[in-house]
Amino acid sequence: MKKLALADYTIYLGPWEQAWPEFIQGRKYSQYFVLADENTAQYCLPRLAQSGFLPEYTLIQIPAGEQHKHIGTCTQIWQQMLDAGSDRKALLINLGGGVIGDMGGFCAGTYKRGIDFVQIPTTLLSQVDASIGGKLGIDFGQVKNSIGLFGNPQAVFVDTTFLQTLPAREVRSGFAEIIKHSLIADGAQWEAIKKVQDWRNLDWNGFIGPSLRIKQRVVEADPFERGLRKALNFGHTIGHAVEGHALETDSPLLHGEAIAIGMVCEAFLSRKKTGLSSNDLAEITRFFLHIYGTVALDRANYAEYLRLMGNDKKNEGSAINFALIGPPGEVHINQTAVAEEIIESLDYYREEAEMWEKLA
Amino acid sequence: MKKLALADYTIYLGPWEQAWPEFIQGRKYSQYFVLADENTAQYCLPRLAQSGFLPEYTLIQIPAGEQHKHIGTCTQIWQQMLDAGSDRKALLINLGGGVIGDMGGFCAGTYKRGIDFVQIPTTLLSQVDASIGGKLGIDFGQVKNSIGLFGNPQAVFVDTTFLQTLPAREVRSGFAEIIKHSLIADGAQWEAIKKVQDWRNLDWNGFIGPSLRIKQRVVEADPFERGLRKALNFGHTIGHAVEGHALETDSPLLHGEAIAIGMVCEAFLSRKKTGLSSNDLAEITRFFLHIYGTVALDRANYAEYLRLMGNDKKNEGSAINFALIGPPGEVHINQTAVAEEIIESLDYYREEAEMWEKLA
Repeated sequence: MKKLALADYTIYLGPWEQAWPEFIQGRKYSQYFVLADENTAQYCLPRLAQSGFLPEYTLIQIPAGEQHKHIGTCTQIWQQMLDAGSDRKALLINLGGGVIGDMGGFCAGTYKRGIDFVQIPTTLLSQVDASIGGKLGIDFGQVKNSIGLFGNPQAVFVDTTFLQTLPAREVRSGFAEIIKHSLIADGAQWEAIKKVQDWRNLDWNGFIGPSLRIKQRVVEADPFERGLRKALNFGHTIGHAVEGHALETDSPLLHGEAIAIGMVCEAFLSRKKTGLSSNDLAEITRFFLHIYGTVALDRANYAEYLRLMGNDKKNEGSAINFALIGPPGEVHINQTAVAEEIIESLDYYREEAEMWEKLA
Repeated sequence: MKKLALADYTIYLGPWEQAWPEFIQGRKYSQYFVLADENTAQYCLPRLAQSGFLPEYTLIQIPAGEQHKHIGTCTQIWQQMLDAGSDRKALLINLGGGVIGDMGGFCAGTYKRGIDFVQIPTTLLSQVDASIGGKLGIDFGQVKNSIGLFGNPQAVFVDTTFLQTLPAREVRSGFAEIIKHSLIADGAQWEAIKKVQDWRNLDWNGFIGPSLRIKQRVVEADPFERGLRKALNFGHTIGHAVEGHALETDSPLLHGEAIAIGMVCEAFLSRKKTGLSSNDLAEITRFFLHIYGTVALDRANYAEYLRLMGNDKKNEGSAINFALIGPPGEVHINQTAVAEEIIESLDYYREEAEMWEKLA
């Protein structure tokens, strides 16, 4: 079992039943709560329960899906903890993907002004993205993660055997954050990643560790997202808008799928603004289209994308802020683009995707 | 103008229009929001606005009263900030009593994972109690302050001229926390306070400074309420229960009025458990009955008081936790009492109050 020691807590990389006894030794909680959705309650919780290591617990089960990541679900979680007579020495175990981790962490961080919680991320996305950074929260007023706080868990348990419970598309979604980490901070890893032909047969353990170390470096330098940490937004300004809009349609996109589109668009902006070479742009574009396929963007939605970007919490005032890249591995924060440039970048993706489809 | 420099921020004691220019110099916010209720919007906001120092602002007005300190009001506050396109560099100015400060601070602390806020407490209670400690939050599931977080403002402006806008009963309520601070940490101040005959003619400036310094000492030693800070709970375990119950009746009590009852009861427990002398108990009891008058406690409500104490967030597991006092100025945290003893202490208050009324 590998361990990644952060300033405040440890990420355990390996089988949960090896990590948990080490974590829990010497700790004393008054009660244990497991927060799960109907999927993780069915597919992941039995493994914890059958290990014989999980203490007696109260299950708080919520419906699966981003559409339930709202304040109404929080009130249900708080109420169940209150009804169980939970005091400030209880532990909340968040078992699930990003929604469970973000919302469960927010509920723990605000229940009686903060109780301990641990994360057991069960998706690749949450394993590489939510394990570090302390971003907790919920969606509000149609803006993703617009209510929340910064707070760290007591531990994170990254166990890739949980990935076997996932649809392949979910795993591919998480891969996008691993790719992003390489593009903003590790050119050598990008060289390795760009050779990947078949993402279905990858050994994820080999990718998660390096990816987490990149994120650790960035976050520890800027825990409250005042500067450097904005580097992690590469692909996210446009990606979030595309994701937010798709959520309202019959063809919602997974986070990584939207961010993949966002990274192609923002790589286009990076060629114009921050020195990404045409050759690198072409490689990045082809790679994402190969791994993620194409999504037909409709120009009729551009205005809505722009509106959603205007409400993005990463922006200051009216300027649209971007983290862009230079040569892969090099990032430039606090870049800006105007609406015309953003539209041009969306057109770039749209046309490249159309061409890709024709050649396929 | 006096200033009290805490680790993270400054409390300005004096006229707001002198303090604000010093605070705001060199700071740059993208937008200003003032959170007020209908009372402070009418009686306090004009003074800020007419000073000529307040920057252009958006008013967020909420209904006055503890009964509005809930998550529904938070969603209205968040929504108005979102509708105004507020980014993470906005400043929220909380103008009002404890409800405004606690809830506004919570909303600021969770809006886009935290924006800056300042407190302009307009009641004596919030000036001495909420200026230090970073406790932010709302009531939930009939439990006071059960959802919240710890977070500090950028500054607090304590201006006693706002007290002139208050009913006398509100001012007297705040006095209870000043008395509490002396009883737990400053025997000499208690000696001075206990001579007070007419609280209506006190110079509050002379009491607020010392009271804040006591609270500063306690809070800085224990910012997250893991130990010493429980000292501030003296009078609050029973007081909160009495307050919570009264809130549901036709005769709600102000916080300080309930805490005054709580301090008499817990002084009774202190005599039994932590060495408070009979003479001191008698002095404390007489003083509170003189200042606050009497409230007729009904034995029929005791069970409900006990239930409310069982849900009090300061308790761990099923034991009922108290902060009690020795000789005035000396505090003992982590004391416990069983239901019979608590009932005995409630009877003590009830009988002393009855006797006081007969003698009056």
